[in-house]
Amino acid sequence: MKAAVLFNTGEPLEIINGIQMPALTRGQVQVKLLYSGLCHSQLMEVQGGRGEDKYLPHLLGHEGVGIVETIGEGVTKVSPGDKVVIGWIKGDGLDAPGGKYPHEDYLINSGSATTLCEKTIVAENRLVTLPDDFPEKLAVLLGCALPTGLGLVFNELQPLPNSTLAVFGLGGIGMSALIAAKLGQPRMLIAVDVTEEKLAMAKKLGATHTINALEQDPVAAIQSLTEGQGVEYSIEASGQTRTIEQAFESVKDGGGQCIFASHPRDDERISLEPHAFHRGKSIRGSWGGASKPDVDIPKFIALYNEGKLELDDLITRTYPLEDVNIALDDLHNKKIIRALIEI
Amino acid sequence: MKAAVLFNTGEPLEIINGIQMPALTRGQVQVKLLYSGLCHSQLMEVQGGRGEDKYLPHLLGHEGVGIVETIGEGVTKVSPGDKVVIGWIKGDGLDAPGGKYPHEDYLINSGSATTLCEKTIVAENRLVTLPDDFPEKLAVLLGCALPTGLGLVFNELQPLPNSTLAVFGLGGIGMSALIAAKLGQPRMLIAVDVTEEKLAMAKKLGATHTINALEQDPVAAIQSLTEGQGVEYSIEASGQTRTIEQAFESVKDGGGQCIFASHPRDDERISLEPHAFHRGKSIRGSWGGASKPDVDIPKFIALYNEGKLELDDLITRTYPLEDVNIALDDLHNKKIIRALIEI
Ligand SMILES: [Zn+2]
Ligand SMILES: [Zn+2]
Repeated sequence: MKAAVLFNTGEPLEIINGIQMPALTRGQVQVKLLYSGLCHSQLMEVQGGRGEDKYLPHLLGHEGVGIVETIGEGVTKVSPGDKVVIGWIKGDGLDAPGGKYPHEDYLINSGSATTLCEKTIVAENRLVTLPDDFPEKLAVLLGCALPTGLGLVFNELQPLPNSTLAVFGLGGIGMSALIAAKLGQPRMLIAVDVTEEKLAMAKKLGATHTINALEQDPVAAIQSLTEGQGVEYSIEASGQTRTIEQAFESVKDGGGQCIFASHPRDDERISLEPHAFHRGKSIRGSWGGASKPDVDIPKFIALYNEGKLELDDLITRTYPLEDVNIALDDLHNKKIIRALIEI
Repeated sequence: MKAAVLFNTGEPLEIINGIQMPALTRGQVQVKLLYSGLCHSQLMEVQGGRGEDKYLPHLLGHEGVGIVETIGEGVTKVSPGDKVVIGWIKGDGLDAPGGKYPHEDYLINSGSATTLCEKTIVAENRLVTLPDDFPEKLAVLLGCALPTGLGLVFNELQPLPNSTLAVFGLGGIGMSALIAAKLGQPRMLIAVDVTEEKLAMAKKLGATHTINALEQDPVAAIQSLTEGQGVEYSIEASGQTRTIEQAFESVKDGGGQCIFASHPRDDERISLEPHAFHRGKSIRGSWGGASKPDVDIPKFIALYNEGKLELDDLITRTYPLEDVNIALDDLHNKKIIRALIEI
């Protein structure tokens, strides 16, 4: 089979053909992929932002959709022929290591959910079955962006109706969070990004105000929009420490809540004003939107079927697996919201 | 009357005699002071750590004990002759500005609770009556250190029994927090400071382990004591950004909670690992231990009367008002836990 493989951090992924599939062990499932997503996490891994990669050569990608081919011992959640969502967030079922794929005279390593390949070996607990009528292309969003972006609003922030919110960073997670926040009927929903197209889309999706952070200081702009108070809630998903700091600075004293989904480079730190905590601001990080995939993915699908989630514009561009490095570049340059890799 | 007055930040307080008392306005109470406390906040104000002081010349101190002399219009909570605790945390009763004290050809400003003076004008909501049998010297602790230190454990952290805790900084707040934490029957109670005498006292008060941060890295030492896990709770009251960071670094992934009472210099920031939030650590600041003085001070007094609060060693040294600058120096040099100023 064919896959995009990281041989050295800081270098492009290589497309390798003729990789062999190892035998399944307990809890593993072999899936033929239809589509893979691509997100900031892979960008970090490729660029070396996660420090030394001990698993080189390493098969990447942690969100996808495909068809189950074979199941390992103990697997009961899915059967051959099932259409499934693959995601990195642990759900029900057996945990298992990823496959070690033989190629020539070496093995290619992978994690428990791997998707930038034609076929993959995934742990049972990283799979959720997908109804036949849900669009396959959008289904990759169910593996990472939607559980995180919707989850951090529905499961974690749970904003009160009529409140004021700001969303920093309109990638797949930020845009999903904006959609979820809009469902809560906010009084003010401010979108912050550096790309006019994304800001225009945010407006279409219900943002009441947009701020281009290249043109104005978003913290000052939010203070001005809220008469010097700051917003009640801020959501950050830009991938940068500075935007986490800005999101924290943008919430109001006496109860303002900031939540961030970004996983910046491992060696970076966020710098916060200690007195802001005393004045009643809070900050927390989101781990996959605190989503339970087996509970939340069916909920998200139901919301989509009710017409409440306008997801269709979230996938900006589709790339063949061969162009995965172009997709990574476009993601790095913030040209796209979410890339779809067609396998 | 006589008072210690700040004329210029960065310079010692000046002892001024012959200050006049202005007439009381609505909600104000005139109190003859017996004792004042002294804490890190005054040190910051004197050193200029709160930025420009717009109230110069400024009468400082925010914790004390005294006797009510006269009451202003609308005051119902106290009567002349009542013994009262003065503290900076707002409670029941009318809010009011502090006095503006005439002296020679200028006015001396003060906040709503001011204590480094023979007589003071305090807002009704900064007073709580003190039972006659409670030791007057210890009562100053009820104005700041105890509501903050006990409150951040009883009201905010609420540690589960049999848990692991670390307390950073054994001043009045840290030592009070340690006493409160001990009452919760922790499995491990680690005290961190830079002074052997304070560590010895912490041991006497129930610390199971002590760490001298001048001799070993407290984060590494705590990791070692907890088999690489970190503690479940950390409490920080050292007054420094680095110790806030260490307290955060010392709690365990997946639920570890850090709370800090320190108010470092206004221009300083704390630097935190963003991924630690994703891994489930949390941090918050304490505003006076979330104490409600009218509810909590009587509770603390009751606990003391039951013999559950060993407060007697917390006041390390008593200074006359004339020696307030020596007391500030001793506090700065971490020679004392809490200074008592005898008026
Ligand atoms: Zn992802
Ligand atoms: Zn104080």
